[in-house]
Amino acid sequence: CTRHLYPLLTLLRWPPTPPHNQVNLPPPNPPRSLAVGMGEERTEAWWGRRAWALLSAVRARAPLVQCITNLVSMDIAANALTAAGASPAMLHCIREIPDFTPRCHAVYINVGTLSEDWLPSMRAAASAGRPWVLDPVAAAASQFRMEACLELLALRPAVVRGNASEILALAARSDSSPTFKGVDSSHDSGEVLQAAKALARSSGTVVAVSGAVDFITDGEQVISASNGVAMMQKITATGCAVTALIAAFVGADPSDALAAAACALAIFGLAGEIGMESAKGPASLRMHLIDALYGLDEQTVTSGVKIALLP
Amino acid sequence: CTRHLYPLLTLLRWPPTPPHNQVNLPPPNPPRSLAVGMGEERTEAWWGRRAWALLSAVRARAPLVQCITNLVSMDIAANALTAAGASPAMLHCIREIPDFTPRCHAVYINVGTLSEDWLPSMRAAASAGRPWVLDPVAAAASQFRMEACLELLALRPAVVRGNASEILALAARSDSSPTFKGVDSSHDSGEVLQAAKALARSSGTVVAVSGAVDFITDGEQVISASNGVAMMQKITATGCAVTALIAAFVGADPSDALAAAACALAIFGLAGEIGMESAKGPASLRMHLIDALYGLDEQTVTSGVKIALLP
Amino acid sequence: CTRHLYPLLTLLRWPPTPPHNQVNLPPPNPPRSLAVGMGEERTEAWWGRRAWALLSAVRARAPLVQCITNLVSMDIAANALTAAGASPAMLHCIREIPDFTPRCHAVYINVGTLSEDWLPSMRAAASAGRPWVLDPVAAAASQFRMEACLELLALRPAVVRGNASEILALAARSDSSPTFKGVDSSHDSGEVLQAAKALARSSGTVVAVSGAVDFITDGEQVISASNGVAMMQKITATGCAVTALIAAFVGADPSDALAAAACALAIFGLAGEIGMESAKGPASLRMHLIDALYGLDEQTVTSGVKIALLP
Repeated sequence: CTRHLYPLLTLLRWPPTPPHNQVNLPPPNPPRSLAVGMGEERTEAWWGRRAWALLSAVRARAPLVQCITNLVSMDIAANALTAAGASPAMLHCIREIPDFTPRCHAVYINVGTLSEDWLPSMRAAASAGRPWVLDPVAAAASQFRMEACLELLALRPAVVRGNASEILALAARSDSSPTFKGVDSSHDSGEVLQAAKALARSSGTVVAVSGAVDFITDGEQVISASNGVAMMQKITATGCAVTALIAAFVGADPSDALAAAACALAIFGLAGEIGMESAKGPASLRMHLIDALYGLDEQTVTSGVKIALLP
Repeated sequence: CTRHLYPLLTLLRWPPTPPHNQVNLPPPNPPRSLAVGMGEERTEAWWGRRAWALLSAVRARAPLVQCITNLVSMDIAANALTAAGASPAMLHCIREIPDFTPRCHAVYINVGTLSEDWLPSMRAAASAGRPWVLDPVAAAASQFRMEACLELLALRPAVVRGNASEILALAARSDSSPTFKGVDSSHDSGEVLQAAKALARSSGTVVAVSGAVDFITDGEQVISASNGVAMMQKITATGCAVTALIAAFVGADPSDALAAAACALAIFGLAGEIGMESAKGPASLRMHLIDALYGLDEQTVTSGVKIALLP
Repeated sequence: CTRHLYPLLTLLRWPPTPPHNQVNLPPPNPPRSLAVGMGEERTEAWWGRRAWALLSAVRARAPLVQCITNLVSMDIAANALTAAGASPAMLHCIREIPDFTPRCHAVYINVGTLSEDWLPSMRAAASAGRPWVLDPVAAAASQFRMEACLELLALRPAVVRGNASEILALAARSDSSPTFKGVDSSHDSGEVLQAAKALARSSGTVVAVSGAVDFITDGEQVISASNGVAMMQKITATGCAVTALIAAFVGADPSDALAAAACALAIFGLAGEIGMESAKGPASLRMHLIDALYGLDEQTVTSGVKIALLP
């Protein structure tokens, strides 16, 4: 077994073993599986195949995802990424970013436990030339946080994922469209969609709004993803974990952030649905969700994800 | 389902959805259920009803609890709060405290991984005018830590929760009562109670001492809470989690911190007892405890909590 | 029960209850069980008895292990230490180290989420005169990190535990032996062993290389430990947790760091094997592994560990 020495029990595999040998390069062209059906009508079955192709790409390429995320979510985010096949790397020291970040497939930035000493690292990692994803946790909690989110948003994330409140708050502050009227506390979904589209257009990013139904938009198209169970709200930081998963999917195939975000949300929700079959509460759901994410097979994914292009 | 868009998967719900609309105000008067039996004799059955009323209030009001807590406990504390129905918010940046802390129902401060850069935020949050709860983890570990604990104690927490060693160490440093003689390493429970009462009187706070039996005192009355199982000691940061739960109970009904602390300790211990029925070790106990906390019903709580006023 | 008041639910027990009364002193001489069979041939059965004696010593002495570790691993490392019988203390504030570190049985330092403000504390704790163990996570991730690892290595840890990539990277930078030719990306195990031995000799430390088979060397002898299951790689920070366990074993018996490292690796791997019998994925494996570590008995350990002295 001496030639099969593998890195048991590690947070980070480094120097990167294959497929990380090419981490200085952008990931290669999408493999054939990802390109299948490109010209076809985007039915639910098409989305099922797409979601499976993306998850398979994550498993095959083990994208290295640098996470500068909140202190509460680190455990679940890293374990969700690992279970999905990605390679998480929680590095936040600004002195490491010039050496490390360019080698990553994607970057994940989350402001949940924002502080003045971490913000410069977030800016630097977002500016390092890699596709990156933003989770604007509680964007409206303070003026400091809102300004940090707007500053990061100006650094052009590939995807922003928030809940309705967060997206509405960001849109109200950053949108230049005269057609967007502001935040209604009732969170009418039509208004949320209008805000998400306006934010996507003004920021040049894909915006994903999580909820009982998730909506993902590039400012023109709107896709819905309807997987998941209500009890996932009772697990701390599942939102942070699914945003990390979006980063991994973007890292595995940066060519279509809209599809990556929709498929990551649907697959994470699907894992929650499967986990719920064995769960007796939020803590066992968390465990079963991660186990299910690890064990997803082609049949389950292609028949289970519920993604649709809204008319 | 468009009108039912809810914040799936979030660490923080913000801007606060109801019942957070009134977070700038102190929580309203105790609902009728909390006031029931106020004039009655405080039997074990009375305490059972009281504990259920408090847990119901946490579930109904989802008190927003800002946690400035140690890095080890964040996951379990946030998940315990969420499972109980509260809304945890792990924010520690001093620039956010003026905007955010006044909107919280309660603040939880824990010095487990104290550092010089977090201490000013602890001071600021403790001074923001909200009811707050202190966990003086390992108060005697260093002179720096002891002084930080004493300084925080002077900011008048509603409740301090520690183990016997921590309470004895704090009492020895802060007590002005000539009747308190100091720390005996045997931790004789009579001496511990004397120390807790002296600390409560000199600090003007409720003091809770965790142990096989928990004691809670305001310096005059002493209440015992006898739920829990020994294996809970083998789960890291269960103490931190139960102190967070005390903060949530205080946030839901700040009018009686003594009862809030006793009921939170009893309910967390009761969840441990139920979890123990399915546990095979400390890691599965942790999971089952959180699941049980989420699932507690009226019959289980009213008949299960073991709280008594000591003569 | 008043005399049996015990510290329920605490991160840290402090002031130390027995057996911590003597924490200012080095742990006493190895108890008889650890000395049994010292002159005998080191068969697999001998190693089984040795591993059991060390685990029993951890349970009996509850060594206090200060952990300055990465933010991702804190939960699993603390829970693994607690389940094994040790007393973890996550303290990283430099102002506490002069008071606290000398009272510890061992120190664990892990650079996974290294930052400029934590590095001085790592240096101080490594210099405090207690046996300590280094986990050089992703040593080659940046020049800053590599230099930090080399600087810490110069402070003479008792044990360094890394994966093949990490050990190869460290050896390439620190080795003075002309017989070591550098890093081959194929990670040929012969080359890895050569690197580990060279690093052990040049640094005066025990080097442990984790993999499908773990190798532990003091520069002369090489010991293999072959427990564990592949899925442990899919749990974030199991590597960090096992290095923490090595620190606890070194803390319980600092007289033989080579044996402590080999036995900790084998016992953690054995807990993984037992956990795997009930696991349905990485998250349930994590839970069952910790439960199994807590429940290990003499028969299971003595017959289950697979340790051998390589010829």
